[in-house]
Amino acid sequence: MAPRYAPSLRAPLPLSILLLQMGFAALFALYARLAEPEVTADNHFTNTYAGFQDVNVMLFLGFGLLATCFVRYAFSSLAFVLLLGSCSVQWAILANGFLYHFHDGKIWISLRSLAEAQLCAISCLIAMGSVLGKTNPVQLLLMALLEVTGFIANTWILHTFLKAEVMYSSALLHIFASFFGVIMSWTLVQKQPELQHEKEKLDRKTALFSMMGVLFLWMFWPSFLFGLVAPSLPACKMAAIYSTYLSMAASAISAFTISMVMSPRGKINMAHIQGAMLAGGVAMTFVISVNHMPWVAITTGMCAGLLSTMGLLYLKPHLELTFGCHDTCGVLSVHGLPGILGWAAYLFVQVSHAPDTAWSQSMFCICSLLITLSTSAIAGGLTGFLLKWTIWRPPQDRKRFEDQAFWKFEHLAMEQ
Amino acid sequence: MAPRYAPSLRAPLPLSILLLQMGFAALFALYARLAEPEVTADNHFTNTYAGFQDVNVMLFLGFGLLATCFVRYAFSSLAFVLLLGSCSVQWAILANGFLYHFHDGKIWISLRSLAEAQLCAISCLIAMGSVLGKTNPVQLLLMALLEVTGFIANTWILHTFLKAEVMYSSALLHIFASFFGVIMSWTLVQKQPELQHEKEKLDRKTALFSMMGVLFLWMFWPSFLFGLVAPSLPACKMAAIYSTYLSMAASAISAFTISMVMSPRGKINMAHIQGAMLAGGVAMTFVISVNHMPWVAITTGMCAGLLSTMGLLYLKPHLELTFGCHDTCGVLSVHGLPGILGWAAYLFVQVSHAPDTAWSQSMFCICSLLITLSTSAIAGGLTGFLLKWTIWRPPQDRKRFEDQAFWKFEHLAMEQ
Amino acid sequence: MAPRYAPSLRAPLPLSILLLQMGFAALFALYARLAEPEVTADNHFTNTYAGFQDVNVMLFLGFGLLATCFVRYAFSSLAFVLLLGSCSVQWAILANGFLYHFHDGKIWISLRSLAEAQLCAISCLIAMGSVLGKTNPVQLLLMALLEVTGFIANTWILHTFLKAEVMYSSALLHIFASFFGVIMSWTLVQKQPELQHEKEKLDRKTALFSMMGVLFLWMFWPSFLFGLVAPSLPACKMAAIYSTYLSMAASAISAFTISMVMSPRGKINMAHIQGAMLAGGVAMTFVISVNHMPWVAITTGMCAGLLSTMGLLYLKPHLELTFGCHDTCGVLSVHGLPGILGWAAYLFVQVSHAPDTAWSQSMFCICSLLITLSTSAIAGGLTGFLLKWTIWRPPQDRKRFEDQAFWKFEHLAMEQ
Repeated sequence: MAPRYAPSLRAPLPLSILLLQMGFAALFALYARLAEPEVTADNHFTNTYAGFQDVNVMLFLGFGLLATCFVRYAFSSLAFVLLLGSCSVQWAILANGFLYHFHDGKIWISLRSLAEAQLCAISCLIAMGSVLGKTNPVQLLLMALLEVTGFIANTWILHTFLKAEVMYSSALLHIFASFFGVIMSWTLVQKQPELQHEKEKLDRKTALFSMMGVLFLWMFWPSFLFGLVAPSLPACKMAAIYSTYLSMAASAISAFTISMVMSPRGKINMAHIQGAMLAGGVAMTFVISVNHMPWVAITTGMCAGLLSTMGLLYLKPHLELTFGCHDTCGVLSVHGLPGILGWAAYLFVQVSHAPDTAWSQSMFCICSLLITLSTSAIAGGLTGFLLKWTIWRPPQDRKRFEDQAFWKFEHLAMEQ
Repeated sequence: MAPRYAPSLRAPLPLSILLLQMGFAALFALYARLAEPEVTADNHFTNTYAGFQDVNVMLFLGFGLLATCFVRYAFSSLAFVLLLGSCSVQWAILANGFLYHFHDGKIWISLRSLAEAQLCAISCLIAMGSVLGKTNPVQLLLMALLEVTGFIANTWILHTFLKAEVMYSSALLHIFASFFGVIMSWTLVQKQPELQHEKEKLDRKTALFSMMGVLFLWMFWPSFLFGLVAPSLPACKMAAIYSTYLSMAASAISAFTISMVMSPRGKINMAHIQGAMLAGGVAMTFVISVNHMPWVAITTGMCAGLLSTMGLLYLKPHLELTFGCHDTCGVLSVHGLPGILGWAAYLFVQVSHAPDTAWSQSMFCICSLLITLSTSAIAGGLTGFLLKWTIWRPPQDRKRFEDQAFWKFEHLAMEQ
Repeated sequence: MAPRYAPSLRAPLPLSILLLQMGFAALFALYARLAEPEVTADNHFTNTYAGFQDVNVMLFLGFGLLATCFVRYAFSSLAFVLLLGSCSVQWAILANGFLYHFHDGKIWISLRSLAEAQLCAISCLIAMGSVLGKTNPVQLLLMALLEVTGFIANTWILHTFLKAEVMYSSALLHIFASFFGVIMSWTLVQKQPELQHEKEKLDRKTALFSMMGVLFLWMFWPSFLFGLVAPSLPACKMAAIYSTYLSMAASAISAFTISMVMSPRGKINMAHIQGAMLAGGVAMTFVISVNHMPWVAITTGMCAGLLSTMGLLYLKPHLELTFGCHDTCGVLSVHGLPGILGWAAYLFVQVSHAPDTAWSQSMFCICSLLITLSTSAIAGGLTGFLLKWTIWRPPQDRKRFEDQAFWKFEHLAMEQ
């Protein structure tokens, strides 16, 4: 029942996590200071603690419970989300701090820098979705460090070379994270013997936990997008809430009906609902900053729900069978495709509003998308190669999606 | 295992939902626009996004999880709450918009109109509680449209003929929804072969999910009532929070003790707790606008808990055995009786405060109650008759409270 | 299966709860009035309803779900947390009101007094953690009344004799509650036949519910500590949020790694994670008021996670085997040890900041700690002796950790 690596190697794995945390503590001691509230008041990314707290709920309860769907992997999923979230938030505070909040030799921590770090942590948890169940915590932590670094590098590239605003490059997070995840998963685990691992299935109770996670994400998505709109546009911020709310509702209805229509016996598939309900929010990430018509939000939500369900039905098994690319939570369909749909809707609205700048606007959008796709593919591929290294002791195939490999269960206390 | 309707009919059912959503999109495109935040600031129903978000949590997580109690019907309950919530919010925005927010040929959407729509959606989900498990999603959606229309019509009648304030007519939502639900259920399903369907029972785990839903409703009820107090009375708004908090606490304690006292062996019944804990909040819906004495809140809460537990113990089985009226979640005992108790307490406090207007005040209260009861009975009866129509393919008796009829379970993927 | 006490005694137990609630109602009627919002605005403990609501979520959802971990005791744990929370909040409003908010012959209730009452309720629920599963609801309610009274008395003693600020004495709540609980449990149940009760174990699903409770506590801890900082220090309030957030993250990582390192096969123990994740927040309760360096927060969090895991691994079984002191949820390791660590860190930071007042500062801290320990030990011991009295009909040993003794399960409806 125990993992097959020798006892002498097991201790170094948790110790390396502890060392990482001590490294963070040292970096914080050397460089990080808390900013005075006055400094942050006029330049706020998320202007309220309540909005920050809502995103915190999405990050830990939303993604944490969403990941508990696998019947024998619920403990690990939830715990690894916690571990990765806690770790990537600290690393993102440091990395963003050195790039954007470095004055007088110190990083100044404020509600804004915590909110930016949450954004990076969300991108890291999306990427994690594609390798969940096939990696151990040390691999996941390494992945988290590299993904956050890649995401911040991509934002920096877009900012430096294309003068992209931070709100625009933040909106690319779904596309970046899903492509990073899929390419990483493809590099890491090529061969897939069977179509679906037996343990990848939902059971009636874990599906309810997972659905609760979806609900937390679904309900607080307006708060998430509210934080992504520049505070200089208060009308835009409220509009973001109304639009996102309507889009999420339309996306949920669309997910239900498409799942029912596509099934030969008219039955709903819980896995489709869980993915496609969120697609409306993903697609709105771009659209909120340019559109204030409710019907556009509703239509985008409906199309995103449709596209996402189709992706889960056809694209996910196709990638697996044809390319051997196994995407555990279907992040390409849930975040990648709706993200690109939102990007296209953004471009379309921008061009139709200002036809005279159509050419430059289109070039900017297309370039930024291509740069993001390239960065994510390169970063994802490198991460995948790095994680294959046997020094990390990746779990064997039969240990995948199995809590037993990582957890001490009390009813087995006697035998161990 | 599949529903017995012919394949040719199954596709039209989900397609009709999709058509409905497309109709909403078209109506939003033609009429709905987002209001500027300035317009809404001085005339706000719920004045903060945080309060709106709390009610959103009650609507989807609260009612959604509350409904998961049935041992083999948890997926459907949760998903249908989501579907109905998403749908009725959109319809209520449009219907309320045409009546109250229509200027310059457009409906102006604001945080206020979303909050009003949430109220209608809550009334729709309460009514749904009485037919849960005995209807399919298309029937439920039709019910949602009719219930929301009926509730808005009732508010309009009270406003037009009795000059009732919107806060007062909104407070009637529990009474309207529970009578609508019970009459609809009675018309829809008359004969009940056994006392309780085997699948209507709780199991140890679904009861915990359900209890979480109750807790979300219980905890955020002060936010809900906070939104129902006119913003011109700031002292009243804070008093609503303190009173509701105390009333909910007293109601919980009363529910526990009555459930224990009434059981021959001194044992607590989870179904009673889940219903009666909320009764304190239901009863306060009226009382908050006239009373600021903590002891009145505590006493109202205790009496509501007592009344609700008694209703679940004696009224619910009696209605079922004598009239063949099956009320799945006992909405009459949980929302109807405490609502009437709260109405009576409101009338009593009003009369004792201003004895000189006692006669006119009593007439107004009694008339509004009678109008609400009549409207809800007529609307509920008509809805019940309409839903009996076999074109909707209602689930057969043995398919009731059974997820299998609507969901594709992955462990059965091979056979299907 | 029924409890062994005679029917004639069973009814008095719930009736005594009802009488207690009626007594509260009478006291509220005689003395309690709602304060005008103006009165509370300039003197606010927690300055927003949102912060109050966050602590409410911690109190009921957090502690409620945290307690559901026991495989056959989930209903009782959740329900008794609700019962005790509802009851102790009311008693604390009255007791605090008579001491601190009594003007013109009345207790004035405001958001501040509700927040103070929540604090007392939290201390009561922590103490409950050590006797959970070994007591009946009436014993627990009696314990709640005595614990809240003891905690308020301790605050009053520190305030009167040492001129301690209310923020400082509130921060002692973890230490007071855990020592109260452990001494009470030791007095109440001395002999423990086996090392661990079979029913004290987690199962895969109840552990997930419990983990959700931990997450609610973990996520909203910054709101909790935000409310404990004096509003005259706005910079301190925001710093409390950033520091607590970082400390919680470090504490989670530390808990994971220590649990893995300490296990002979490198496996994580869910019970350690659940306890030690929160230790970072407990330790920060003192530190936030004196420190604004992020690295101190991170280091304190790491040390608290380490100390708490070690306590759960070694101290908890040692207390049980050597002294027969059974601490159900390990509150001494989860709240007591990190609380003392935080106290020591506070003293250290204070002394290093102001070396000239080191002597008086140390004396103050040490005296306040010793007084708190003595008060909690005396109050806990007396409570334990009182609860042993057979008039309360304590559950027999074989009924411990067993829902069957208190709940009517529907699938057994026929037999009962």
